[in-house]
Amino acid sequence: MSSTGRLYGLGIGPGDPELLTLKAYRILKQVPVIAYPTLENGKALARSIVADYIRTDQIEIPMPLPFSVERSSQPYYDQAAIKIAQHLTAGQDVAVLCEGDPMLYGTFMYLFNRLADQFQTEVVPGISSTFASAAMLGAPITYRNDVLSIMPATLDAETLRDRLSQVDSAIIIKLGRHFAKVKSILAELNLLDRARYIERATQANQQILDIKTVDPQAVPYWALILIPSQTQPQ
Amino acid sequence: MSSTGRLYGLGIGPGDPELLTLKAYRILKQVPVIAYPTLENGKALARSIVADYIRTDQIEIPMPLPFSVERSSQPYYDQAAIKIAQHLTAGQDVAVLCEGDPMLYGTFMYLFNRLADQFQTEVVPGISSTFASAAMLGAPITYRNDVLSIMPATLDAETLRDRLSQVDSAIIIKLGRHFAKVKSILAELNLLDRARYIERATQANQQILDIKTVDPQAVPYWALILIPSQTQPQ
Repeated sequence: MSSTGRLYGLGIGPGDPELLTLKAYRILKQVPVIAYPTLENGKALARSIVADYIRTDQIEIPMPLPFSVERSSQPYYDQAAIKIAQHLTAGQDVAVLCEGDPMLYGTFMYLFNRLADQFQTEVVPGISSTFASAAMLGAPITYRNDVLSIMPATLDAETLRDRLSQVDSAIIIKLGRHFAKVKSILAELNLLDRARYIERATQANQQILDIKTVDPQAVPYWALILIPSQTQPQ
Repeated sequence: MSSTGRLYGLGIGPGDPELLTLKAYRILKQVPVIAYPTLENGKALARSIVADYIRTDQIEIPMPLPFSVERSSQPYYDQAAIKIAQHLTAGQDVAVLCEGDPMLYGTFMYLFNRLADQFQTEVVPGISSTFASAAMLGAPITYRNDVLSIMPATLDAETLRDRLSQVDSAIIIKLGRHFAKVKSILAELNLLDRARYIERATQANQQILDIKTVDPQAVPYWALILIPSQTQPQ
């Protein structure tokens, strides 16, 4: 084991390059190999977040991943794991760049499940866009005995309605083309007045909009709705 | 406004000093005044996390806060806000140190509610112990359409049972003397085999224990139980 490389799942935060932790920054600077997911159009959000920190002599492994639910993602993850394993076996440390936190709805978890039993693995937590959004909105999320529910907008309407019908506070992520569905459920449950909308939290093009004025056709994947606690004790 | 100081809610993470963000580190280094909660015994976890980064010429405002639910905390927060406001009015920036993330069950939110409408305020998100625990446990939390519920163990048994009876994944925080109650509910709901226990995640004295061997009398406030997703797709 000692001559093989170490695998890092590196949480790099929601977008602002200053929201890397000191630890993620140190590891990013010292590893010889970095890997990161890329969209089909070649864009790589994770890489763009840390672009200023990457050295020219670092080996880069772009990992094309399917963001369409219609296709099985298994072969994509298998292939990425094989490439990463080659470097680890050759004794090189590899850092997988993870937007937000590696363990929450992340690409890294699929690599973790394939590689962590064969190679020394360290997960470095990152700032999640869920909580970063609360900071940007100036909206405390939960007080005292509140329960927080984090859920993806991709859930079917019935499940969303059921889960949202009893929340103290909630964060609904991955809005994209599911915005209209979510908005109508929030209206139904009298939650629309409490709902706060933010796109691309902490990124250079962050937008905070009144949820009632949002164009459903223009909502990106990286948008979320925060329903803060009503408790607000003194 | 321009001559008054700026208030920072500074997320400093769960314990490892390297889990500060680059941004929190920069602000901590540059502000003339820092404030942090202290327990009745004088201990200050937040200060101890960043002890190595504090300059000797920085003014420190310890904020004694009641951690007993029996007492009203309002006068404590009022008093802390008055002290902080004095420095802000005098044109000095003040950083309030927040364990974990400032907007999640945090002391800072009470100061935010008292001061943010009078002074320029910036909240810097921090690594929450909730997600950091998943990294330390090597346990992916949520996949795809999973809903994550974060809840305090201080809830009454009936509410806890109700909320836990339908979770995809859950994080139960603030265990302390509520451990036995939570464990028995998890057993009842057949969740005990999935439950992972961790104390003081990322702190120097972090402990990961088999939940079945934990001594209920020895569980600290900073302990939590993580119930990871069962989904685990390929």
